[in-house]
Amino acid sequence: MRLSRYLLATLREAPKDAEVTSYKLMARAGMVRQLAAGIYDLLPTGLRVIRHVERIVREEMNRAGALEVSLPVVQPAELWKESNRWDEYGKELLRFKDRHERDFVLGPTHEEVISDLVRRDVSSYRQLPLNFYQIHTKFRDEIRPRFGLMRGREFVMKDAYSFHASQASLDDEYDKMYAAYTRIFTRCGLEFRAVEADTGSIGGSASHEFMVLAESGEDEILFSDACDYAANVEKATFRRGEGPIGTLPVSGMAEVSTPNLRSIAEVSNFLGAAAQTMIKTLVFETSDGYVLACCTGDRDVGEAKLKNAVGAAWAKFAELTEVEKKFGVPVGFLGPVKFPGKLKIVVDRDVMRLQSGITGANRTDFHLQHVVPGRDFQADLVADLVTARAGDPCPRSNGTLSSARGIEVGHIFKLGTKYSEKLGVTFLDEQGKSAPMLMGCYGIGIGRTAAAAIEQNHDDKGIVWPTALAPFAAAVVPLDLRNDDLCTAAERIYQDILDAGIDVYIDDRSERPGVKLNDCELLGIPYRIVLGKRGFENGIAEITDRRTSTMQEVPLGDAAHYVRERTPNTTRSA
Amino acid sequence: MRLSRYLLATLREAPKDAEVTSYKLMARAGMVRQLAAGIYDLLPTGLRVIRHVERIVREEMNRAGALEVSLPVVQPAELWKESNRWDEYGKELLRFKDRHERDFVLGPTHEEVISDLVRRDVSSYRQLPLNFYQIHTKFRDEIRPRFGLMRGREFVMKDAYSFHASQASLDDEYDKMYAAYTRIFTRCGLEFRAVEADTGSIGGSASHEFMVLAESGEDEILFSDACDYAANVEKATFRRGEGPIGTLPVSGMAEVSTPNLRSIAEVSNFLGAAAQTMIKTLVFETSDGYVLACCTGDRDVGEAKLKNAVGAAWAKFAELTEVEKKFGVPVGFLGPVKFPGKLKIVVDRDVMRLQSGITGANRTDFHLQHVVPGRDFQADLVADLVTARAGDPCPRSNGTLSSARGIEVGHIFKLGTKYSEKLGVTFLDEQGKSAPMLMGCYGIGIGRTAAAAIEQNHDDKGIVWPTALAPFAAAVVPLDLRNDDLCTAAERIYQDILDAGIDVYIDDRSERPGVKLNDCELLGIPYRIVLGKRGFENGIAEITDRRTSTMQEVPLGDAAHYVRERTPNTTRSA
Repeated sequence: MRLSRYLLATLREAPKDAEVTSYKLMARAGMVRQLAAGIYDLLPTGLRVIRHVERIVREEMNRAGALEVSLPVVQPAELWKESNRWDEYGKELLRFKDRHERDFVLGPTHEEVISDLVRRDVSSYRQLPLNFYQIHTKFRDEIRPRFGLMRGREFVMKDAYSFHASQASLDDEYDKMYAAYTRIFTRCGLEFRAVEADTGSIGGSASHEFMVLAESGEDEILFSDACDYAANVEKATFRRGEGPIGTLPVSGMAEVSTPNLRSIAEVSNFLGAAAQTMIKTLVFETSDGYVLACCTGDRDVGEAKLKNAVGAAWAKFAELTEVEKKFGVPVGFLGPVKFPGKLKIVVDRDVMRLQSGITGANRTDFHLQHVVPGRDFQADLVADLVTARAGDPCPRSNGTLSSARGIEVGHIFKLGTKYSEKLGVTFLDEQGKSAPMLMGCYGIGIGRTAAAAIEQNHDDKGIVWPTALAPFAAAVVPLDLRNDDLCTAAERIYQDILDAGIDVYIDDRSERPGVKLNDCELLGIPYRIVLGKRGFENGIAEITDRRTSTMQEVPLGDAAHYVRERTPNTTRSA
Repeated sequence: MRLSRYLLATLREAPKDAEVTSYKLMARAGMVRQLAAGIYDLLPTGLRVIRHVERIVREEMNRAGALEVSLPVVQPAELWKESNRWDEYGKELLRFKDRHERDFVLGPTHEEVISDLVRRDVSSYRQLPLNFYQIHTKFRDEIRPRFGLMRGREFVMKDAYSFHASQASLDDEYDKMYAAYTRIFTRCGLEFRAVEADTGSIGGSASHEFMVLAESGEDEILFSDACDYAANVEKATFRRGEGPIGTLPVSGMAEVSTPNLRSIAEVSNFLGAAAQTMIKTLVFETSDGYVLACCTGDRDVGEAKLKNAVGAAWAKFAELTEVEKKFGVPVGFLGPVKFPGKLKIVVDRDVMRLQSGITGANRTDFHLQHVVPGRDFQADLVADLVTARAGDPCPRSNGTLSSARGIEVGHIFKLGTKYSEKLGVTFLDEQGKSAPMLMGCYGIGIGRTAAAAIEQNHDDKGIVWPTALAPFAAAVVPLDLRNDDLCTAAERIYQDILDAGIDVYIDDRSERPGVKLNDCELLGIPYRIVLGKRGFENGIAEITDRRTSTMQEVPLGDAAHYVRERTPNTTRSA
């Protein structure tokens, strides 16, 4: 590419509303422009990166035997009503009417549409398994989209859906997709981890997230230092202690005055008790109503864990003012003993190990001491409710859990028969009996992967692309355009690299050297080949590695070869 | 591809609502399924064809120096209000509100969005010219979408927009795009013609359509047998005669009784006058109001020509009942002399050559004779209004016009400053003066190209793909799966073709030979390599050319080579 015939569109300043590094740098590097909240134009430089991600994803999905399809963005409401998600999905599902007043949605995901296709065209176990994927536009009407390609409203996703006659077949495909995703993110040149994950609103029985490790990541992950255990903090467990906690009660349950003391720290300090012997009590709102949740005072209840324990579609910490208004109890003094409102009581399993504990008395400025779980209150459900944290013992080995931040770029699910039952996706088995197909689904955020790569790879000068994703693997920068011989030499190097099938640009703009060098660094081009007056007279080019900032003087005739040697074949354009 | 792990999804019957051959065959061949009116799933076989078209288009656009971008499907209403098309576009522009009640549209085209991008990021003549293209999803809410991929509501289009500092630069880019389109449709293996076209609602000063020739085409094109003149019938002209038509009037204008005689044929017959001496009079409704149009009785007025003559945004033949109601004149007896309602009178130039003519008297059962244009009525505008037809003399040479049917697959326009003025897309010229950029736009219907290829290339057994577009260039069909040696030989041929980078399938399904052979013909695979029991024993495969139906016996070891030799490099996958 000749920059004189290209639109580079680099900016000195990031847009004022840019909140994350990747969006700031993508805007400054002329990759994206915001058209409306969460909706972006992809400029030539941005699209080049997206196409690299797409190509790697496509090659690995094909290698794994998945079949590429393309499903509509605009989908009829009827299908979403069949799956119940017309009601369940919430406002992120953008709904509208066509000119004939028929209801449609902009597809945020395609379980319904692919299920409809399969139920019409596949009927026998002999046709299974099948795995369909597409790389296409999706729309989710996020309430506050602010993170560039990290979380847009309109975005490109690779989504895949597999269909099976048996659990063994689903398990096998899931493993294949896990392996394909591992290859994909490895080829993208990213540092990542696959972690066990909550299945969230998609549902299903098992799930892994692929996390690009970056300090700016929205997600926390926990991983073992002694085995390959790794999980999203929402899902992570830890090895629990055994045996009783605290001491046997010296007397029956008794009220104690705790004036204006509301927090675990305040109360345990005041009463001289370990935080672990406090019974922390919280109200959660779930899709199935309010729930009372208890854990020991040294821990926190995780929303996802509570949701799974009660089998709800969602759960969230209830608004405190709402709790006081609804149940007439003062926040800070809540407890499971005679809590008004007859809520379901769900307790973490460590609460049941308490010989006696302290908890709120459900009236202002009072707590209860010597509370014995099972004697003084009954749990409706005992479950793993609490959030693991760094330093906790690994649940699978003798190791210890460490913490890291990650950006979710891929997510794989075993859906089971959740959608196939609702939508009637059935097959005839070998005995001629009809049964719902088992399903898996497998997503990768294409733009998000590019953005995550930047979050993980940048410095104060700009982006530092992994070679596989770089818009151009190399740049040839002649500093003096009036020197014809120098330009001819630059041109020859440019052509040689181009002929090797490597994406390269030559900066033939009549700009100052500083502008050319800064643009090249901002864009994150892995290899910058500079031809300056002095070097050229000595027959050398200066090649700088963007990642290490190391510069090497290379004879002009060897410059193209230098880049070819360092650019993997798989990153080259066809 | 092994068909045992593929979804072929061929059907015996086309969907009941399928009206055109291409949709019938695409549905039967398992390429598409309708999800909702005008909205289609693309199955693996269909997507393969679409990807071939896309790749050819992308390669040629890149070769011509255009830059690929990706612009959003969902676009803010503000931009459409700036260009006035929020009001002008009509119901095909699908409008909706997001969760914050802001107005958006689903993009039917992207002039507004690309103009917005360019006005923000391009400011100097030194950055021009630029040509941006994308291959992406569009949505037009067609009132009655019935033709499969030929005219869907959601569809994939290549659209490109160029920006220029001078008319010469626009002209140059237009010629480049004309050449690129010629290469594209040639590489697709299609018989096509570029024809002069009306600019329609897009506007602009010049335009060509690229028409795939097919009897089922919606458009009529006229072309010269002696030069390269070719035009859409809407736009086509012909060499007019010179000198007067008819005879000098023997007397002044006079009413004549024509009881119940309304048509040109009836009246001219009754009065013994040539049709050419009748003044046919019609009412048109246009964006700027009603207009009276006249032409000689042997001709018809074209809507597009009338629209251009009066400079309206649109024009259509007025409803007859509407005309009678509105103007109180009986249809069949209309004429330009004292037509009630003071309409603008637009006449075709041949009307002005009449020495005297016959026309309606604007009352039931009466016509006027000896009418002299200019004496008995005044034309407000004289223009080229009438539709050319086969047999007319070519306007550019001594040739004669012939007629053919075509399917519009590409359309290029010189837009001039129509959009850049409205949207403020300006640049600073060499003198530092601000001026609106000149624009061109260039579209190709990707799915429509695939459908048009089928309309042009099919027989009673199914599709006959041009090799460049075929989902698979070759098929290896072992007829007896129980014969291990035969299967091994088939497998070897399959692998050899695959290794050459040619799309090929092996039909390893346990289906009857008839099913395998019929599927292969329906799918339109150019080369079918059959290994039957008898042939195999003699060391030969039977290779059938789909287009010619000729079969050749080829030694097993030469089969792969046979296909490689006949498959152009440019059609191979990377």
